[in-house]
Amino acid sequence: MKSYRLVPGHGLAGLTVQDRDEPEPGRGQIVVRMRANSIGFRDLMVLADNYPLPITPGVVPGCEGVGEVVAVGEDVGRVKVGDRVAAAVFPRWHDGPFRRDNAAQLGTMIDGVLTEYAVLSEDGVVHIPEHLSYEEAATLPLAAVTAWNALTAGGAPRPGWTVLTLGSGAVSLFTLRFAKLAGARVIVTTSSAAKAERLRALGADEVINYRESPQWWQDVRTLTDDLGAERVVDPSGPLEQSLKSVAVSGEVALVGRWLSGAEGAKPLDPAVLFGAGAVLRRVATGSRAHFTELNRAIAAHRVRPVIDRVFPFDEVPDAFRYVQSGGGFGKVVISHD
Amino acid sequence: MKSYRLVPGHGLAGLTVQDRDEPEPGRGQIVVRMRANSIGFRDLMVLADNYPLPITPGVVPGCEGVGEVVAVGEDVGRVKVGDRVAAAVFPRWHDGPFRRDNAAQLGTMIDGVLTEYAVLSEDGVVHIPEHLSYEEAATLPLAAVTAWNALTAGGAPRPGWTVLTLGSGAVSLFTLRFAKLAGARVIVTTSSAAKAERLRALGADEVINYRESPQWWQDVRTLTDDLGAERVVDPSGPLEQSLKSVAVSGEVALVGRWLSGAEGAKPLDPAVLFGAGAVLRRVATGSRAHFTELNRAIAAHRVRPVIDRVFPFDEVPDAFRYVQSGGGFGKVVISHD
Amino acid sequence: MKSYRLVPGHGLAGLTVQDRDEPEPGRGQIVVRMRANSIGFRDLMVLADNYPLPITPGVVPGCEGVGEVVAVGEDVGRVKVGDRVAAAVFPRWHDGPFRRDNAAQLGTMIDGVLTEYAVLSEDGVVHIPEHLSYEEAATLPLAAVTAWNALTAGGAPRPGWTVLTLGSGAVSLFTLRFAKLAGARVIVTTSSAAKAERLRALGADEVINYRESPQWWQDVRTLTDDLGAERVVDPSGPLEQSLKSVAVSGEVALVGRWLSGAEGAKPLDPAVLFGAGAVLRRVATGSRAHFTELNRAIAAHRVRPVIDRVFPFDEVPDAFRYVQSGGGFGKVVISHD
Amino acid sequence: MKSYRLVPGHGLAGLTVQDRDEPEPGRGQIVVRMRANSIGFRDLMVLADNYPLPITPGVVPGCEGVGEVVAVGEDVGRVKVGDRVAAAVFPRWHDGPFRRDNAAQLGTMIDGVLTEYAVLSEDGVVHIPEHLSYEEAATLPLAAVTAWNALTAGGAPRPGWTVLTLGSGAVSLFTLRFAKLAGARVIVTTSSAAKAERLRALGADEVINYRESPQWWQDVRTLTDDLGAERVVDPSGPLEQSLKSVAVSGEVALVGRWLSGAEGAKPLDPAVLFGAGAVLRRVATGSRAHFTELNRAIAAHRVRPVIDRVFPFDEVPDAFRYVQSGGGFGKVVISHD
Repeated sequence: MKSYRLVPGHGLAGLTVQDRDEPEPGRGQIVVRMRANSIGFRDLMVLADNYPLPITPGVVPGCEGVGEVVAVGEDVGRVKVGDRVAAAVFPRWHDGPFRRDNAAQLGTMIDGVLTEYAVLSEDGVVHIPEHLSYEEAATLPLAAVTAWNALTAGGAPRPGWTVLTLGSGAVSLFTLRFAKLAGARVIVTTSSAAKAERLRALGADEVINYRESPQWWQDVRTLTDDLGAERVVDPSGPLEQSLKSVAVSGEVALVGRWLSGAEGAKPLDPAVLFGAGAVLRRVATGSRAHFTELNRAIAAHRVRPVIDRVFPFDEVPDAFRYVQSGGGFGKVVISHD
Repeated sequence: MKSYRLVPGHGLAGLTVQDRDEPEPGRGQIVVRMRANSIGFRDLMVLADNYPLPITPGVVPGCEGVGEVVAVGEDVGRVKVGDRVAAAVFPRWHDGPFRRDNAAQLGTMIDGVLTEYAVLSEDGVVHIPEHLSYEEAATLPLAAVTAWNALTAGGAPRPGWTVLTLGSGAVSLFTLRFAKLAGARVIVTTSSAAKAERLRALGADEVINYRESPQWWQDVRTLTDDLGAERVVDPSGPLEQSLKSVAVSGEVALVGRWLSGAEGAKPLDPAVLFGAGAVLRRVATGSRAHFTELNRAIAAHRVRPVIDRVFPFDEVPDAFRYVQSGGGFGKVVISHD
Repeated sequence: MKSYRLVPGHGLAGLTVQDRDEPEPGRGQIVVRMRANSIGFRDLMVLADNYPLPITPGVVPGCEGVGEVVAVGEDVGRVKVGDRVAAAVFPRWHDGPFRRDNAAQLGTMIDGVLTEYAVLSEDGVVHIPEHLSYEEAATLPLAAVTAWNALTAGGAPRPGWTVLTLGSGAVSLFTLRFAKLAGARVIVTTSSAAKAERLRALGADEVINYRESPQWWQDVRTLTDDLGAERVVDPSGPLEQSLKSVAVSGEVALVGRWLSGAEGAKPLDPAVLFGAGAVLRRVATGSRAHFTELNRAIAAHRVRPVIDRVFPFDEVPDAFRYVQSGGGFGKVVISHD
Repeated sequence: MKSYRLVPGHGLAGLTVQDRDEPEPGRGQIVVRMRANSIGFRDLMVLADNYPLPITPGVVPGCEGVGEVVAVGEDVGRVKVGDRVAAAVFPRWHDGPFRRDNAAQLGTMIDGVLTEYAVLSEDGVVHIPEHLSYEEAATLPLAAVTAWNALTAGGAPRPGWTVLTLGSGAVSLFTLRFAKLAGARVIVTTSSAAKAERLRALGADEVINYRESPQWWQDVRTLTDDLGAERVVDPSGPLEQSLKSVAVSGEVALVGRWLSGAEGAKPLDPAVLFGAGAVLRRVATGSRAHFTELNRAIAAHRVRPVIDRVFPFDEVPDAFRYVQSGGGFGKVVISHD
């Protein structure tokens, strides 16, 4: 069976395909025949060795993958052969707050899922919603889990609240949809009229073009009778504007995309932090419990994730190049079919 | 100006109409020309002196009222003449948990709102949503605030959760609608096919006829893959069935209607409480902050409350008789127009 | 190696000792040479098959055990040979709220720890505080975890709060000590002057003799200026008095001992529940995270648990008879040394 | 009666004493004969018009004051003549989260308490602990309320947690003492051996001299087995070091002193924020409920606040000069006796 493997720090040049025997599950483990993956900016950071976690040389990259259980080891009870499952990005983070001894992450510290067959802990997977294809379900493990955690860690948003999410990246799209399910009014920022139209079609109540309105926090204030948004999900920065957009006693969830640089990374004046009168919460993916819970919401409301493009498994490098070029709208998916 | 006044313990016979001069607002007070009230089982308990709070003889009854601000006293800043406001049932309970020094309640300990003009603290009112008539807004202070508190005090329900609410009383109808706004799947119990149809029209995903299915908790289990409902709002009992219907680590909100007797008041086996593995939360109305928050939700989603019947102000006794007879579907409203 | 094994429903007559080979750890597992256990009323209920969980015939009983890691399987990273560990009563409940798929419990559904060597999941143990002997640490897994969960699940008690705990059973003793660490004023009920003295020595601020004062909830009211206790931990009932003792917006934690019968099991008038104006939380043990957290508290404050009597491993039946007789003050411990 | 009055933006030159008639209480109001005040850096910022709130020209400055109720207006029920009370800094913020319509603050937007007699809302005061002198109680309204809010808004610290507080300013001293009451291990930073000794006498478990150890976050890591502190209260910055000191999933409370400038105000790299994996909470004073709750804790544990120096009421300008010079250890108090 084929797996991508990674020598970090060399970008795509560090990526190779290796062929090995199909794995056997140990006690408490399962083997999943991967059917779809998705990739994103996080993987580019891993390839560049520009990611805030240690990367094991030779590791199988990829943290987003779904497939079918084809073998189960001894003492496995949560899943059975034939089940459709998704791998949790942090297989040991089952529930509760993130803790250091749950830090093992797929595709950096331990083998990930850009592979034909993956050996996973039975405790490190969740069942995927029936109405989703594998391609659709492959969009969930990173972006949807992050959005769910960002929206709910400080308490679920309430009907009538305003939620602001920045940009039309994958986390932002899931934030938009989850916040709408929760009855919130949703404001999204974007840079193009075409994306604005798509965001409105997904339910956005208000779309602000940040090119046309570089001080867009003022638009947020205007749209909210100067109250600000009870929740801001900020995957890209500039954080200063998020802090000026949030309601007093509200919350800004800081999600990681801005790590990759650009204007989001500008130094922040602590007086802006103080002036916001809010809580700032760092969010990095989420737990298995988050994943299970969002799956119920997606299933109940028949949400279908947005896929940008699908690449076959043997064209993963092209897919990475596409992501690097900026991509389109929605997740970039890898299909094994 | 005319006010109803009450000698408790005599039922309707204790209710009289008295005529006095129009009141003047003191510092921090406002005068509201009442435009609509609503009434319910709570008022019947007050009339019967069968209510768990002391009742001041001669008090103006009624805790649900809305109207127009016609005069403001010194130092009033939150409202102005002409504003459309609703009185908060507990005028001193502004925010946070219920505390004993906020216990003064309209229509029992202090004068209520079955009157043409009421003097209220400016801190004891909220603005009402623009899209609602006074009759519609009059349904909110008790039933909607209770439902909002019941649903949110332990954290807002999350999209995909199951919420169970018992019966088609006013609290239950608001619970149904707020839970739907929050993205929950809602199960309601009722005793008639006609009400079932109306409940479905309001958004109920599942309706259980408890006459046909006296052990309806089993239906809840079946409808939820034996998980139970994450949230149960129980205004009427039997509490034992609520406890058998709730999911482990879920929450049952105990709302007061069952106080009035009947099967809801049956003694409870503590083993059922223990077996539920859940939290049981007593809910009695809610704070001004709850009221403000639900108004935003109602305004954002253009929710229109269900009115059963409207009686004119001088037919309040007939309205009470109608409530006593069991009423219909929705709130019984008093109009001053 | 010797293990007790159990045929449920026969009391002590269903208990046998069996001798088998020393076990080998599978992947992710460890072998612990048990050094001490403790037992209590829960085990008596299990022996009598009077426990609210299914009991596997032939199961190794006992859910409280500590020992030394003597072997580790493949992929074990959290513990190593030589570590002093305690087994978690629910080995799969790591963190967050209790969920059904974490329900496997030592000594009922799966093999427990009344054995010379136990095979455990590495994820199902915690390190024990250095300053404790094995006998002392053996008192923690059930009683201390329950007390910690009962006190903290609704938010840790705050300095200056009043905590009421009922009786001098093991859960109550740990509640007393944890609440004192948290800065609370602690009231305890007991039936004897001798126990009252010991409770005061452990830090109780007030002790009420419920024999002398059968309506002891009135004493609680008097001692708290009629405010009641912000937190009540009730392991024994009568729940009605707990509900009359709790402060409005406070919380009663319902812990399981009263399940075993007696006056705690009396049917409850729902009006008392409603009148309490509080939250009632069912607590059944707790998670591995609770256990880890209380260990830190115990270590930081050098708390030494109270041991009543120590029996050798081959006298477990005598130890059970002692527990059944009512025991003394503190936990009954089994030593393997 | 004499009051200080303020023209903002002129420092001490803007401060005058004016003599007016003794005030009469309106409905819901009380008159308090001030017996002691305290002052601090916040007042210097107000004098300099360098404070993030609008300042009414001619306002009575000072937000920290205690005294005796000498007159009560109509409808006053919470206090009576002769009561010893403290003014709440935000008289309308009774409970729950800070909201914009509770923003009126003593000594900036509305008249404060550097006066012989103050008219206050009965809802804007709390009773002070009996064991405290007026001078001691005058230290509480700003610094103690801020510390209590900072420690509890995200849930009370738990026994065994590590709490880090920066410096020996008044907020930090109260944080130290409240955290000790809650059973936490407390680390404090300071710049001098003399202060270190006093901090240890107040209960500090560890004191780090930040002059000797400019990268003191590394000391925090060492002292906590690299886990970091579950809670950090940061009144002074540098925030970057606080973020490097906090445990993952922990919380940093950002308190306002660093607003006054210096190294605390350095721009912050968002990557440090992200790397912390924690919650950052802005804290500005707290509610009346916080004040009431901390008073109970102080009363129960007989805590005596630390007073640096006491100045007579007619030497307030000297007292401000003393604060400006850096002061000593503890609060600067103004006595009216």
